[in-house]
Amino acid sequence: MPEKPLILITNDDGIFAPGISYLAKLASQFGRIVVVAPDKPQSGMGHAITINSTIRIQKTNYHHAELEYACSGTPVDCVKMAVNNILKKRPDLVLSGINHGSNSSINVIYSGTMSAAIEGALEGTPSIGFSLCDYAMEADFTQAEKYISAIIQESLVNKMPKGVCLNVNIPNLKADDFKGIKIVRQARANWVERFEERKDPYGRNYYWLTGEFVNFEPESTDTDEWALANGYLSVVPTQADMTSHKSLNELKHFEKL
Amino acid sequence: MPEKPLILITNDDGIFAPGISYLAKLASQFGRIVVVAPDKPQSGMGHAITINSTIRIQKTNYHHAELEYACSGTPVDCVKMAVNNILKKRPDLVLSGINHGSNSSINVIYSGTMSAAIEGALEGTPSIGFSLCDYAMEADFTQAEKYISAIIQESLVNKMPKGVCLNVNIPNLKADDFKGIKIVRQARANWVERFEERKDPYGRNYYWLTGEFVNFEPESTDTDEWALANGYLSVVPTQADMTSHKSLNELKHFEKL
Repeated sequence: MPEKPLILITNDDGIFAPGISYLAKLASQFGRIVVVAPDKPQSGMGHAITINSTIRIQKTNYHHAELEYACSGTPVDCVKMAVNNILKKRPDLVLSGINHGSNSSINVIYSGTMSAAIEGALEGTPSIGFSLCDYAMEADFTQAEKYISAIIQESLVNKMPKGVCLNVNIPNLKADDFKGIKIVRQARANWVERFEERKDPYGRNYYWLTGEFVNFEPESTDTDEWALANGYLSVVPTQADMTSHKSLNELKHFEKL
Repeated sequence: MPEKPLILITNDDGIFAPGISYLAKLASQFGRIVVVAPDKPQSGMGHAITINSTIRIQKTNYHHAELEYACSGTPVDCVKMAVNNILKKRPDLVLSGINHGSNSSINVIYSGTMSAAIEGALEGTPSIGFSLCDYAMEADFTQAEKYISAIIQESLVNKMPKGVCLNVNIPNLKADDFKGIKIVRQARANWVERFEERKDPYGRNYYWLTGEFVNFEPESTDTDEWALANGYLSVVPTQADMTSHKSLNELKHFEKL
């Protein structure tokens, strides 16, 4: 019998979040599970790594995984720590999430969940970030179970393009209302920010970052935003190459300086 | 006489770093300068934003700019704070840096310097991240002054492609040894990490993240790594779209799940 695949699980909501518990349990049907996840919420950490400070890890047993650590670092630190320090062999799959809230469109660059998946792909391992478009801690992940299982299984069977991970977003629907999966591109969008100013008890100002999501191309039907708004799980092949290849020629005038 | 351009300056090494002092002074020849920069080093923060905590700003006068704030947040927070809360009008140019150390190749996704520039482009403003391939605090930025000035000036005159910023890396050379500027793509590369384990005075383990940079395509002559190794300033047009467009078709089999 062939060895069961080794699946590394992480997230950005922290090792106690319901989303990672659900994912670890579900993924254990498909292989041996190792969890290395942040010891506290790390939402919005993007691709941050810990280089000005130290990292600690603590053995835990919240998810009854084969091996399990809470890590003081960022989601990307967790993947690096697992692959380069904890695991003796490379994982066959990295799963990140399930995130409580959307990581579609521009959210991908702010997302710790997705940065962990991108880091997994950079390390040469097929990787998937899962996010449910429901920020509630009591979000119901079971509704999309059929699709989440199928995506994990498919990723273990069919090779993923090198250096590419999947950004899977799940609309907040009941099981019967899902229309299927769409392979789509990241929509052009932005957050229009507002800084909410408050005064601390000592009379000094401080701010909360808040914002409103704006989709710049609501009419495009090949984007993740369109898929989600129309009842599909969106799957965006995501990579670490941020070069704007189509601008290379347009900017040649700089070479004359 | 037309109004002078408004130039927003930030970085990730913190508002006290020599690199931002040099950049603010140089840029003041080309317009009105506003500095909003982290109040402490924020290297490796990637595209992190502060959403689980509050942000503070403090008026300062280290750079004799028209307006100047030290911000408790990340480099991306600084840009959001400047554009959405401090400035009354949109800046004409966002400059980030000059970073003490390289942000070429894969470093772009870990870099707070570049994330600030990417955020500037997302906000609709032409943006440039500058990095000198010298980590020393006493790095000599003046050697490339001719090029840095020319790039800033060119960016104020010629429109940049929408949503695209420039990742400018400067090899650590003497002025006479620069061969010019190359518009190039981000090289495929990675860090091979090693976690250095130490014991604290209480006998508990902690780790320092260290690593070695590996260029996966040293033979390619159209990459930033090649340009830097051959005496050129590398300029990579950089965008927030992380979709692997060429993988879209390759992954269609997921739509059948």
